[in-house]
Parts: sequence; C-alpha cells; structure tokens
Amino acid sequence: MRIVALAGGIGGARFLRGLKDVVAPGDEITVIGNTGDDIHLFGLKVCPDLDTVMYTLGGGIHEEQGWGRAEESFAVKDELTAYGVGPSWFGLGDKDFATHIVRTQMLGAGYPLSAVTEALCDRWQPGVRLLPMSDDRVETHVKITTGDTSGSAAGSGTRAIHFQEYWVKLHASVDAEAIIPVGADTAKPAPGVLEAIAAADVILFPPSNPVVSIGTILAVPGIREAVAKASAPVVGLSPIIGGAPVRGMADKVLAAVGVEATAAAVALHYGADLIDGWLVDEADAEAVTEVAASGIPCRAIPLLMSDPAATAAMARAALELAEQVRA
Amino acid sequence: MRIVALAGGIGGARFLRGLKDVVAPGDEITVIGNTGDDIHLFGLKVCPDLDTVMYTLGGGIHEEQGWGRAEESFAVKDELTAYGVGPSWFGLGDKDFATHIVRTQMLGAGYPLSAVTEALCDRWQPGVRLLPMSDDRVETHVKITTGDTSGSAAGSGTRAIHFQEYWVKLHASVDAEAIIPVGADTAKPAPGVLEAIAAADVILFPPSNPVVSIGTILAVPGIREAVAKASAPVVGLSPIIGGAPVRGMADKVLAAVGVEATAAAVALHYGADLIDGWLVDEADAEAVTEVAASGIPCRAIPLLMSDPAATAAMARAALELAEQVRA
Repeated sequence: MRIVALAGGIGGARFLRGLKDVVAPGDEITVIGNTGDDIHLFGLKVCPDLDTVMYTLGGGIHEEQGWGRAEESFAVKDELTAYGVGPSWFGLGDKDFATHIVRTQMLGAGYPLSAVTEALCDRWQPGVRLLPMSDDRVETHVKITTGDTSGSAAGSGTRAIHFQEYWVKLHASVDAEAIIPVGADTAKPAPGVLEAIAAADVILFPPSNPVVSIGTILAVPGIREAVAKASAPVVGLSPIIGGAPVRGMADKVLAAVGVEATAAAVALHYGADLIDGWLVDEADAEAVTEVAASGIPCRAIPLLMSDPAATAAMARAALELAEQVRA
Repeated sequence: MRIVALAGGIGGARFLRGLKDVVAPGDEITVIGNTGDDIHLFGLKVCPDLDTVMYTLGGGIHEEQGWGRAEESFAVKDELTAYGVGPSWFGLGDKDFATHIVRTQMLGAGYPLSAVTEALCDRWQPGVRLLPMSDDRVETHVKITTGDTSGSAAGSGTRAIHFQEYWVKLHASVDAEAIIPVGADTAKPAPGVLEAIAAADVILFPPSNPVVSIGTILAVPGIREAVAKASAPVVGLSPIIGGAPVRGMADKVLAAVGVEATAAAVALHYGADLIDGWLVDEADAEAVTEVAASGIPCRAIPLLMSDPAATAAMARAALELAEQVRA
C-alpha cells in the first residue's frame, strides 16, 4: 500500500511515527513536508518542519520538546550572542546547526532541497520517503497590527513578519490578520510530489496546522488539485479538540483565514472536494453529524497523541476510515 | 609610536602578545595578518591566522594548543562526521564555528573581509588594529609529488593541495616542491595596509613562517614594495633556532623555495633591501657575523617564547634594535 501524508512539524511527525507502527511490511509512506516555515538564520537554511519529521522518525528528536535534537548543547548560539549576532529567540542547538550547515553547503553547491533532504535522510533513515513540498523558496508571512503591542517605535500600522517571528518570538500573542505564503504562487511541487499523490492508495492529513502547515502545502500550485482529483481516499485528523488546538496556536491562524477553531469548521474549511473522511476527538462527537452532513464521512475517536499506542490507534482509525470510504 | 607587524598564526600571535606587554600607552600596533591559510570548510570561510591573532590577543585562545578556543566542544563536528561530511582532519570546535558563521554571513551580505575582521574584533578587543593582508581571496597551495606516499590511486605525479591539507592533514610529511599563493598576483592590499606601512615608526616581522605566512603577505602586490621603501626600520626575528623551526614545519616550505633552514639563511632570504635588522637566538650566535656582512645589523638574544616575560624581552629587543638601526 502506498500512503501519502502531508505534514507540518511536531504534530505531523508524531502522527507519522504512529502510522509507521501500524502499516504492514512493504507499505510505503511518502511524506510531503511543509517548507513554508523555513527560515534563513545566520546565513544558514533552516527547515524546521522537515527536520522535525526527520529527527522524530529517525530517533534524534528531543522528545519532551518535540523539536530539535536530544541531548543538545548550545555553544554556537552562546557565541553568536557574544558576537551580538541574533536572533536569539530561535533555539538552534549545536547538533542542529550541523544539519543546517550540511543543507546550506549542499544548496550552495547547486543541489535542490529535495536532493538535500534525501541526503540528510540517508543518515537518519526515517523509514519514510520525505519530500519537501517544493524545491522553490516559500516563506509564510503573517500580517499583524503593530503599535504598543509590538513595541514598535514606528507607531501603529500593519506589517508582515516571518511566521517564525510570529510563532516563536511573539508566541502568536497578537492577532494574525492574514497568512501570506510568499512565493507559493510561483512555486512548483518538488519532484515526486504530484506523482506520489497520483499513485497513492491512501492520502492522510495528520493533525497538523490546517493553515500554516497543510494549508501552505496545498497552496503550492498543483498540489491541492492533485489531492482533490486523486483516486485515493483522503482522510484528515482534527488538530482541534474541544474548540482549542491540542498544541500550538492554530486558533490564531485559523481566525486569520476566517475559520472557527472547531473540529467541524476545519473539516469544512478543507471541504468535501478535498477530503473524503474526517476524524474528530470523542469530545467533539457532536461535530460528526455536521461534518457528515457536508458530505464528509466522520468518526469520533480519541485523538490525543498521549503515547505511542494512542497515536498508533489514531493512525489505524484513519486507515480504516479510508477503507470504509473507498468501499 | 606606530608599530606595524606582519603576522601568521601561533608564533606571530604569541609574539604580538609580548609586544603589547612592552609598548608604551598610546603606542598603536597595526597587525597585517596572513590570509593565505584561509580555507572554505562546510561552506564557511575560515581564517585560521586572523582568528589565532584575535583569540590570542583577545583572551579566547586555547593556550596549550596555540590555536582554537579555550574550553572548546566539538558537537557540530561530530554531527558533520555522522552525516559523512568532511573533512574531519581540520579541527573546528563549536565556539570556533560561531566565528566562521558570523564571518561567512557578513561576507555573504557584501562586507569585505577587513570590515568583517573589524566587526569580530569589536567583541575580542585584541588591543591592536588587525587587518587582513587583502580583502581578495588568496589561497596558498603546496605542490607535492603524489604516489605511494599520498595513497593516491592515480599513481605518481605532482599535484597542488591546499596549504591546510599539506600542513594539518599531511603534517608536511612529504616534501613541498613549490609554494603557490594562488590569487596573490591579482590581490590588492586591504584598505589601510599600505597606509599603515607608510606611516609606521617601526615595522616588525615576528618569528612567523617566512614562506607561507610573512612570505604570502609580501606576495600581495604593493606590500613588499611598501615595506622596502618605508621610512621605518624593519626588524625581524628568526623563526629558526639551531637549524630547526621552533614550532611547525617551516624547514619543509623553506626547502621548497630553496632556502636553508638556518637563522642566517632566512635573513638573507628577506634580504637587506627589505629588513634593517635581524634577531637570532643565542644558539645561532655564529650567524650574527654572516648576516651583518650582508648589510643587516644582527643581534643574538634568547628567542624562545617560553613564557610571557621571555616573549616580552624579545619584543623589547626588536624595538631596541629598530632604534639602533634608525640612529
């Protein structure tokens, strides 16, 4: 069986680990990773979501934190701070730096990001085929209102900041007025992306952020269309439980695109033309009818990835729902 | 008093520390650093000699080793090795990596190396004005005979390798047939270099390598000529004691340029048109007459930089000899 999953960072990576636990030997998982979170820091190309997937599935992740490397040190970052070189709000550890150094060197030598990602995965052996959504640069920017809140001396106004600045530096503490995947309109899907979608037996949307993770992947011209017309059933898992994101600040970016932070609203946001099945948490059982009424078969199951077994059960349920809607 | 010193790495840096100990308040030291040892590693620009001077005078050097940072860790390098990315023979520590990251980022942003060096020195406050010999890329290559010695599968022949590969990887274990400062012929002295030489009251050649350190600096068109015609006395200190280099493998590269590894031969290699005074170690007292006979006033003093006091005494002797030849 060929499974394709679109994935952001922590939530996507953890779900994929559960998925790996339940697939049969010989099944192939292709992960299309979000690169809209990518950022250039200290002259290095950092791909937080790709790395989180790679480290998580390859056994190098900092488990409690969910991102970055286990047993990490911060000598490089401390030195950069001593040089007065920032930003200091983005936590790059020494081991992590090596990944970005290798990536940047390969990109500089002319390799596309997809080839670089494959080379990095040679070491990590994540057990999935990890593809960036695009080899082209796409950078998610967030439009915010500045003023007293931001400490800007320029007075009140709107400005667009990098997603990482919004998420990691500001902790999404101000409202997002718009999410702009800069460059997405002219980006091309990375080699293999459209082919994997077309050849898939099942397509999954893990409980990743529907706006800045999966939404950004779908914003690359050709990907949304390929998913919509794929013969494989497309099943998604709600990242919202009981009206709040399980982790992160998805409610803030959902509001920016006019979507309520509910399990049902996210399903309707994707829409029946895109997804063929939707899983909500048992706490959102009342959403099942509403989602189903819009033409999207829906089930309520426990959706908290509290441990490997619970995560594997979610993946199993997603694959089962895919089989049910296929039939 | 305005003192200009040409300097390579470890030997030059230690001498400069002694020089700082003996100059009067208000004296200005300008160091023209060798950049022929510079190397691109992992996509980063590494300037070993500039950094050794900066770390040594700024209090960050690994004292016993003579290069690199004190209390260094190697997480990044270990990770690069885990990715199969080399070379592994060049010892870049985590703290050191930060310097190269800052430098590479600034160079990428368009700053010349001289401005980058000044910015790095803002942190280190070396107490001297540190100028790279040139903002242009110069890379010292060493011509060697390959064959069984090098383990090359291509059979016997000659090839040119980067100086660092010759020095750090091969430990100068094969003969050097030629020293080629690639790019030197079209390089321009960095801003301030010629002006500092012209305005100097004293010019010093520390006991740095006369071929691959001071020789490379002098190979930048305009620098040798500026030193030769400078009104200031030029005094050098022999890096050879008792027919052998005090540290490093200067004899190998001296042989490549047809110069005997003796204190007298190095003085004559510089020549009376360039230097106005020469200090040899007491072990080489017999060289004094020979060097003086060629028109270069020469003194024998203890030249081992065994501790700060001994090093300071060497610097004092160099300044005294400069005053004597000036008079």
